[in-house]
Amino acid sequence: MDTICIMGAGSWGSALALLLNNNGHKVNLYVRNESQANEIISTNKNSKYLGDIIIPSEINIFTDLDSAIKDASVIVLAVSSQATRAAVMSLQNKISSKVILVNVSKGLEKGTNKRISEVVGELLPSNSFVVLSGPSHAEEVAVKMPTTVVAASENIEAAEYIQDVFSSEFFRVYTNPDVIGVELGGSLKNIIAFGSGIIDGLGYGDNTKAGIMTRGLAEIARLGVALGADISTFAGLSGIGDLIVTCTSMHSRNRRAGIMIGQGKTLDETLAEIQMVVEGITATEVAYNLALEKNIDMPITAEIYKVLYEGKDIKETIKSLMTRTKKHETEDLIHLKYSEF
Amino acid sequence: MDTICIMGAGSWGSALALLLNNNGHKVNLYVRNESQANEIISTNKNSKYLGDIIIPSEINIFTDLDSAIKDASVIVLAVSSQATRAAVMSLQNKISSKVILVNVSKGLEKGTNKRISEVVGELLPSNSFVVLSGPSHAEEVAVKMPTTVVAASENIEAAEYIQDVFSSEFFRVYTNPDVIGVELGGSLKNIIAFGSGIIDGLGYGDNTKAGIMTRGLAEIARLGVALGADISTFAGLSGIGDLIVTCTSMHSRNRRAGIMIGQGKTLDETLAEIQMVVEGITATEVAYNLALEKNIDMPITAEIYKVLYEGKDIKETIKSLMTRTKKHETEDLIHLKYSEF
Repeated sequence: MDTICIMGAGSWGSALALLLNNNGHKVNLYVRNESQANEIISTNKNSKYLGDIIIPSEINIFTDLDSAIKDASVIVLAVSSQATRAAVMSLQNKISSKVILVNVSKGLEKGTNKRISEVVGELLPSNSFVVLSGPSHAEEVAVKMPTTVVAASENIEAAEYIQDVFSSEFFRVYTNPDVIGVELGGSLKNIIAFGSGIIDGLGYGDNTKAGIMTRGLAEIARLGVALGADISTFAGLSGIGDLIVTCTSMHSRNRRAGIMIGQGKTLDETLAEIQMVVEGITATEVAYNLALEKNIDMPITAEIYKVLYEGKDIKETIKSLMTRTKKHETEDLIHLKYSEF
Repeated sequence: MDTICIMGAGSWGSALALLLNNNGHKVNLYVRNESQANEIISTNKNSKYLGDIIIPSEINIFTDLDSAIKDASVIVLAVSSQATRAAVMSLQNKISSKVILVNVSKGLEKGTNKRISEVVGELLPSNSFVVLSGPSHAEEVAVKMPTTVVAASENIEAAEYIQDVFSSEFFRVYTNPDVIGVELGGSLKNIIAFGSGIIDGLGYGDNTKAGIMTRGLAEIARLGVALGADISTFAGLSGIGDLIVTCTSMHSRNRRAGIMIGQGKTLDETLAEIQMVVEGITATEVAYNLALEKNIDMPITAEIYKVLYEGKDIKETIKSLMTRTKKHETEDLIHLKYSEF
């Protein structure tokens, strides 16, 4: 069994600590916030993130990073995407090149527009990197609901190692070599989840939402392919799978934020109410800029961007999307096939 | 404006009658059942199928087929898949070869395992055939919720004609040349909807359901490609789009039937309660047989088949699905790409 350090004790980091502990590993959970660490140690709960779920005492809680990473063969990066660079910098010159780094956040770095594998690769180029992604709400993994995810790495042995470490009878891990596709699926889907939340908030139906999700997937796949992803990855667990769960579950912060916007709240009011990171808002800005740069047509992302940043009226956006020029489905969706393969 | 005959006054036929009437066409609704026809004429409602929604008197109700099809340039086949052969036979020697036939049911013919375009092609080979499919619950189209669908035909002009006839500011129609893919997506997705209903009925979470939907899509796409479909169609509105809406909406009879099975009801009890056709049950049997014949791996369909027809315990099926051999996501999903393109 391995010693595994998890950096970050939000919902996902905590749920993965439970999973890995259940799998028999020695789990060190690094919690930067002292009062949160004290709560977990004294009450065996992480109430803000996992409610009444018990965090067993075998899981070691550390506020000191050096102690948390000691003897770890795997370090799980479970902080928000915007905080990942700082977290990885704190590991420089402290870990062996044999340590496998596993990122489980789903976002792009604002400002640089970089994927997390790019950020990690700059700072710790000798370590193997694996991204773990898929339809996996922390609240459900914490209570052992059957869940399926993907572990992607350029190093197939590292991906298979992580597959072994995380797999259990309720947590099924597939491997995939397409790091770019898995990272982009996980981050860009939050844009569509946010948009489908808006649809729900406006009171539209299941038909409308399924349409937005399908066409949304087509446009994030278009951008993904332009950025080097394999289009097929978008049809898998980290693409459609995660899109579905994020667009339909009330566990999704991105969707809940969209619902509030659809109901007429401002962006500031929405963020104040959610009180957690809404990755889809950053992702919208990053994707909008990347699409302009790469000259990719992303009508849904562009409309969401205009609602968020240019004050466009939401009802107008639906009308714009429904009444564009008539199209062959092939023109922008299947089109990919002919141009990319 | 066209004269359009709609054969069948279930939920979908009636909702399309409202749409086409709203678009300014002369709509003849053929209702075989006299008491149902009388109800629509006298109360302007079709209560069993569309509740309190008003069917305007401009829509002509006929119980006589010859009157209903007179002057029609388009005939919409809106009867159940198992009743389509008889409906099309009743049109033989009665219509000009210029009449476009539009099928809107989503199933495969039991016994022959044929798609509806094959059935129609045998009986009326000179008429253009279009299949209209996508995420489009009748109850929502009837109240003008924004909806997106696909019109597929080997005859692109016929598809574009139907696109024009059906399009409105709340009903967006894309064209697609892949009739086989659109028909198979529409019918096979009901298997997965039925399966995801079982997941809901058992009380599993959103993660589990998204996993089943994603892997389910992969296996119906595998069968589809073996039967001549274009794999990309499964990523579009008639594939993922319809899968999403059917697996997540309470409007779906297939999903509701699955929920009842998941809660422990027998198949007979379930069918007695739903009182409408559950296409997914027939589709499971047809797909199971086709998969055996074509030697295609369809683990989810096979498990559902065993629950329905061999009395397998449902909780056992989840365990079988989660604990199969560890896999690369690529092995069966992306694999398609390399073998098919």
